[in-house]
Amino acid sequence: MIKVVVDCFGADKGEQIMVQGAVKAVNECSDIQVVLVGDQSKIEEALNTETYKKEQIVVIHAPEGISNMDTPTIAIRQKKESSLVKALDLVKSDDDVAGLVSCGSTGAVLTGAFMKLGRIKGISRPALCPTLPTKTGGKVCIMDCGANMDCKPQNLVHFALMGNAYMQSMGIEHPRVALLNVGVEDKKGNELAKETFPLLQSLDINFVGNMEARELLSGDYDLVVTDGFAGNVLLKSTEGAILNLLSMLKTDIKSRFFSKIGAVFMGKTFKYLKKTLDYNNYGGAVFLGCKKVVVKGHGSSKAASVCACIQQVIAMHKANLIEKVTQALPNLATEENTESC
Amino acid sequence: MIKVVVDCFGADKGEQIMVQGAVKAVNECSDIQVVLVGDQSKIEEALNTETYKKEQIVVIHAPEGISNMDTPTIAIRQKKESSLVKALDLVKSDDDVAGLVSCGSTGAVLTGAFMKLGRIKGISRPALCPTLPTKTGGKVCIMDCGANMDCKPQNLVHFALMGNAYMQSMGIEHPRVALLNVGVEDKKGNELAKETFPLLQSLDINFVGNMEARELLSGDYDLVVTDGFAGNVLLKSTEGAILNLLSMLKTDIKSRFFSKIGAVFMGKTFKYLKKTLDYNNYGGAVFLGCKKVVVKGHGSSKAASVCACIQQVIAMHKANLIEKVTQALPNLATEENTESC
Repeated sequence: MIKVVVDCFGADKGEQIMVQGAVKAVNECSDIQVVLVGDQSKIEEALNTETYKKEQIVVIHAPEGISNMDTPTIAIRQKKESSLVKALDLVKSDDDVAGLVSCGSTGAVLTGAFMKLGRIKGISRPALCPTLPTKTGGKVCIMDCGANMDCKPQNLVHFALMGNAYMQSMGIEHPRVALLNVGVEDKKGNELAKETFPLLQSLDINFVGNMEARELLSGDYDLVVTDGFAGNVLLKSTEGAILNLLSMLKTDIKSRFFSKIGAVFMGKTFKYLKKTLDYNNYGGAVFLGCKKVVVKGHGSSKAASVCACIQQVIAMHKANLIEKVTQALPNLATEENTESC
Repeated sequence: MIKVVVDCFGADKGEQIMVQGAVKAVNECSDIQVVLVGDQSKIEEALNTETYKKEQIVVIHAPEGISNMDTPTIAIRQKKESSLVKALDLVKSDDDVAGLVSCGSTGAVLTGAFMKLGRIKGISRPALCPTLPTKTGGKVCIMDCGANMDCKPQNLVHFALMGNAYMQSMGIEHPRVALLNVGVEDKKGNELAKETFPLLQSLDINFVGNMEARELLSGDYDLVVTDGFAGNVLLKSTEGAILNLLSMLKTDIKSRFFSKIGAVFMGKTFKYLKKTLDYNNYGGAVFLGCKKVVVKGHGSSKAASVCACIQQVIAMHKANLIEKVTQALPNLATEENTESC
């Protein structure tokens, strides 16, 4: 039975949402066990109202939580009774555990995974890889999107290789990998992009060249490689623009009588948009490069999203992602970078 | 009479759109003269169908054009009969000329302005500063958004000072200046952001701290300072997300009978969105830091946008922008950076 460890602290809606997500996951998949780590009384209270096979859910008590207010490295070292640290210890020590799901502090989850689980041999930096819906109904991943602020070309090469293996494990045989840049021409960009471009060209992947930020949702790319600063800007500005546009639309509809009527007629269109754009349907961001799989869910996740995160861990485990990433590394002169993320 | 030079080559819709924009501008403002530089026969053909005071428009023949296919530095040096080079020579040599408007190749316009007009003393790098509409009905500027790929903290300090003076000349007394970052906390970001933060704090401007990319359109900021790579990603991903979302909306409406009816009722809402989001109402991106004002319009500009670009040049001239930028520079140890943009 494959186990998935869930850190129950940190979701905006508390332990209850994590429990509901776990129950949904075990009810959909009979060969998994979810280990819920966090405040036992709160978790059990939430479990009491749910129906599931008892052997598929285990609870481990962890009285403390690590929040966004904590300094990640200090918290991971000192808060030994926190749900995140206890969860990571379990992920590391139990061979049957496929990986971790957490909706808590991103900084703490990444730092904790890096410190506790360790990197895959040869990977200079693990990286965070979220998924966005495209306008053609597909998905696109960005890697890195916030774990590594200042990167070297070699880091981006590793992101491309890890991301490529990840996409393949998700069923995309020849992922179209692009480099984020300010133009599509080969020689464009900052020093990092210019140095990275020929390195990506030399890899045995389907590298399709530079991608302008404008094309992220076009459906023409599966994986966009960049440093964590630019990737974070790419992800957040895309999310922000969509949210702000929808908010403008909503406010204006409310202010006009005829628009309100129109909106009723357009119910199915709005439902389609909501469903397509809702990150709850896309699980979480995968933190790739550590020795076990880690999925970071949105703080504002709903039960469906927590369930999708658990399913992501299972799918990656079944696809032997860690082995594939290890094998994907060519005989590059790897730089044993010890910087923390 | 204030003169504005317009490079007529390079707009997607050709000379005609530049001519229409110029005619609109002179008809709205009796104390300006527009100098149209480009293919004389095409310009005069377009002028023939327009009504305007003859003394307000002058045509200068330039048989060549510089396109996106040209290497900017080489083209500026060699294509002496091109509309851009002739236009820049005129901007530089005639004291009555307030500045230049071009919808041509961005690289060529920026490189040409840098090489031909020269930098304001003390400015390490000129930068490109476009304007976007916010959800609260205001505007937000990004600086730099593509002219300088790899920046030092000192460059960003100059962007903040130039941008601040620009916003003031546009009537915003205390522009809220933010630093683009991956989080709002003071110590966040890549090395550039971390080193720049305290420098911006020490300036005599209304520095409001870090801004996450998600908040660009919130209306809480007037000017966002960043390097040209991240700024380009910020601008293009925001534009791309909006365009893609609108395209998804349109496609879905077309596919549903009731949604089509709803869209008719919502006509005014869609008109409001279109008007608010149409960059044609916001002129072009200002290239700040050279000795004369340069406004780069979208390649796909309409006449209204070309007119807005001309009005931008006039407004900045009347507000003594170049003098204000020069005065805005504190006694910093300026680095006489000679890199081209």
